[in-house]
Amino acid sequence: MGTRPSRRALLFGGATTMVGAAAGLAGAAVLAPRGEPGPVLDAHGANGAQRIGFHGQRQPGIETPAPAHAVFIGLDLRRGSDRAGERDALERLLRLLSQDAARLMDGRGVLADTEPELAAHPARLTVTFGLGPHAVGLLNRDLAPRWLRPLEAFGIDELDAAYGQSDLLLQLCCDDPVTLAHARRALLKDTRSLASTAWVQAGFRPAYGSAPDGSTMRNLFGQLDGSANPSGERLERALWGGENLEPWIENGTSLVLRRIRMDLDGWDEADRPGRDFSLGRRQGSGAPLHGGGEHDSVDPGALDELGLPLLSADSHVARALPRGVDEVIWRRGYKYVDGVESGLLFASYQADVEKQFLPIQRRLAGADLLNQWTTPLGSAVYAIPPGCLPGGFIGGGLPEAGRR
Amino acid sequence: MGTRPSRRALLFGGATTMVGAAAGLAGAAVLAPRGEPGPVLDAHGANGAQRIGFHGQRQPGIETPAPAHAVFIGLDLRRGSDRAGERDALERLLRLLSQDAARLMDGRGVLADTEPELAAHPARLTVTFGLGPHAVGLLNRDLAPRWLRPLEAFGIDELDAAYGQSDLLLQLCCDDPVTLAHARRALLKDTRSLASTAWVQAGFRPAYGSAPDGSTMRNLFGQLDGSANPSGERLERALWGGENLEPWIENGTSLVLRRIRMDLDGWDEADRPGRDFSLGRRQGSGAPLHGGGEHDSVDPGALDELGLPLLSADSHVARALPRGVDEVIWRRGYKYVDGVESGLLFASYQADVEKQFLPIQRRLAGADLLNQWTTPLGSAVYAIPPGCLPGGFIGGGLPEAGRR
Ligand code: HEM
Ligand code: HEM
Repeated sequence: MGTRPSRRALLFGGATTMVGAAAGLAGAAVLAPRGEPGPVLDAHGANGAQRIGFHGQRQPGIETPAPAHAVFIGLDLRRGSDRAGERDALERLLRLLSQDAARLMDGRGVLADTEPELAAHPARLTVTFGLGPHAVGLLNRDLAPRWLRPLEAFGIDELDAAYGQSDLLLQLCCDDPVTLAHARRALLKDTRSLASTAWVQAGFRPAYGSAPDGSTMRNLFGQLDGSANPSGERLERALWGGENLEPWIENGTSLVLRRIRMDLDGWDEADRPGRDFSLGRRQGSGAPLHGGGEHDSVDPGALDELGLPLLSADSHVARALPRGVDEVIWRRGYKYVDGVESGLLFASYQADVEKQFLPIQRRLAGADLLNQWTTPLGSAVYAIPPGCLPGGFIGGGLPEAGRR
Repeated sequence: MGTRPSRRALLFGGATTMVGAAAGLAGAAVLAPRGEPGPVLDAHGANGAQRIGFHGQRQPGIETPAPAHAVFIGLDLRRGSDRAGERDALERLLRLLSQDAARLMDGRGVLADTEPELAAHPARLTVTFGLGPHAVGLLNRDLAPRWLRPLEAFGIDELDAAYGQSDLLLQLCCDDPVTLAHARRALLKDTRSLASTAWVQAGFRPAYGSAPDGSTMRNLFGQLDGSANPSGERLERALWGGENLEPWIENGTSLVLRRIRMDLDGWDEADRPGRDFSLGRRQGSGAPLHGGGEHDSVDPGALDELGLPLLSADSHVARALPRGVDEVIWRRGYKYVDGVESGLLFASYQADVEKQFLPIQRRLAGADLLNQWTTPLGSAVYAIPPGCLPGGFIGGGLPEAGRR
């Protein structure tokens, strides 16, 4: 099951060459997904014209600022009689969808689109691809990372197979719900002959321009959620690896997607002190209970003047706090309301699920005062392959060396 | 069943006096719901701070520009043993919800809100109340308009009782999905002891600032939808009445809400000429098939140089075109995607359902080429009562004279 550095290095060598060859065109494109394009606003603050580039060394939709709406789509490949046939079908699918994604993110309809007018306001649309175990296995058995398997069962879980592991993941994010609805449909139409839709999970965040730029969003419990997310070098390493932290493939990363129900009625019965005690930060300001401001980090060992702990050892942040830089993860989830059920489409990205995500999740499953009000209902893990350059497709750099 | 002008005049006299009494405060508030407040944008085009006033002679959320998201909520009153008790309960509910609506639209949490932080960006939130037959009957039997009853059955209908008539309607519109989710929950919590939720239907339009201001939205068929909607004096009369067109109560109007499924897969099989022929306008430009621009009106009698009709008599717009000013309606619907079902939450407002809406709907049910791809699944009709002033509540001006 182990990953093979030499193979990865080889593949990345190839990718670098491609970048070099296409340098004239690729220079800007390669960088585009990483930073937000300058706002393109008209007098009314319109952001429909904002585009994020699809092509680049890394896929968009991970570091790019999270737009207001997201749909996560789980796809299962039609099983065929032989592996070669299945792999060809998967490649055809990935090629087609990569083309579609590039066009849609650019504000154009897909080929043979019957409503290209609905693509005209991309509004920061991104399409991101994830591969489940079966898909990576088809492309390149040797590459399959050891962590690419369903998470172990946790005592807190009440998992519903309806939101479980799928072969492929499409993650669509966009500030405009109409553009998003069209993109979702256009992409899904192109999957029909080769895959079936396992599930679709839609979520939301604050509208573009609703809150001041760069402010942390609140979750449905009313808490500032994302305050301690990494940035800069810390984020770079968490997502794409660095010293002592190797991604499964250069410019690849991973996604853990968990559908977590939040019991809003039960939460309403807790008073402010009880809520803040459970989280370890204050609902109003987001500051740790031991003082400071929203962006100050949590100190689980902080004591009051009597020498008593200011933070419960079982508070969510005390348990979640990364024990060292190797555990840092990048959370970019979406809220959901689905009939009478509400919650969080928890989405975390990290170079290595086992090293970074799992220790945190194990601690939270072991004890976390917030668990009284939260229940994981769905769980899936994906390997996120590198981005692609014009003419290429996502997953296109992965096939076994012997084959291409 | 007939309406009684004298009673209505009396009631409106009372309302006017209230306006007079509260004039100092009410001047601005009364006007607020009718025009959009000037954009309150920060450097990033933020519109979260935009507020629409709740108080006024007319309810907000009808003429006010339609925000990106809407939830329509059907409520059924708990049936009691006597009418007086039921009426008291209804009044308590309307009083409470009116208070909540005023606070939420102002960017504040409701009383005893456990997450007031989620109300901080009103983003043009509006809350609009509609009354079904039972509710109007409780408040004032004499006022019940003759058209306040389920629409007649149409041959095109495949109605599902799950989206049928309810006693009350709450219509929430907002540009921010988080603010909307909180408002929906806050309001519904306050209904629990007095009413049950019959249905919740969520819809969307383009995001605030996504498309140039004032442009017509497109529906999920890709068509410009709303081009021929009235404005100015024509709109004023359509909604609130005028010569030869009397509303059920001064500053009141009506809402017909129809859930209409749109068969997107079937539509995809139609080519552009076929689509445009069915509608009578062009998908790209929105112009009538006989020429002109998007905002030119349809002329069902237009002929080509051979004397042949340019517009099919069965095209949607030829059939829908109001036969005279008395049939003008105000369409302000929302698109929806609900699992694999997509469509239009058709919402039209008019002073008189029977005079304005019904002739159009009857013609469309008789023949409309678009019917091949559209199916009404839900239908409900509401009387929209006048707005209220601070201290008052929606429906508060209606109780029978003998009672107050
Ligand atoms: C519905 C479930 C959850 C809720 C409501 C929730 C909420 C929060 C909140 C409000 C914070 C504090 C602000 C911040 O730093 O973002 C936080 C921090 C954090 N949460 Fe969660 N969380 C949930 C699930 C999870 C899960 C499943 C994980 C990972 C397995 C996780 C990992 C973290 C981490 C790493 C931090 C930052 C700790 C620090 O560095 O201070 N959370 N969460
Ligand atoms: C899913 C169902 C429907 C679709 C897709 C649809 C679509 C359209 C479109 C694209 C237009 C042309 C642009 C415009 O003026 O807005 C239009 C016009 C119109 N529609 Fe519909 N419509 C639907 C149902 C209805 C219903 C149920 C009614 C009323 C009973 C209605 C009444 C009208 C009216 C009055 C016009 C304007 C005609 C004119 O004055 O030129 N529509 N519709």
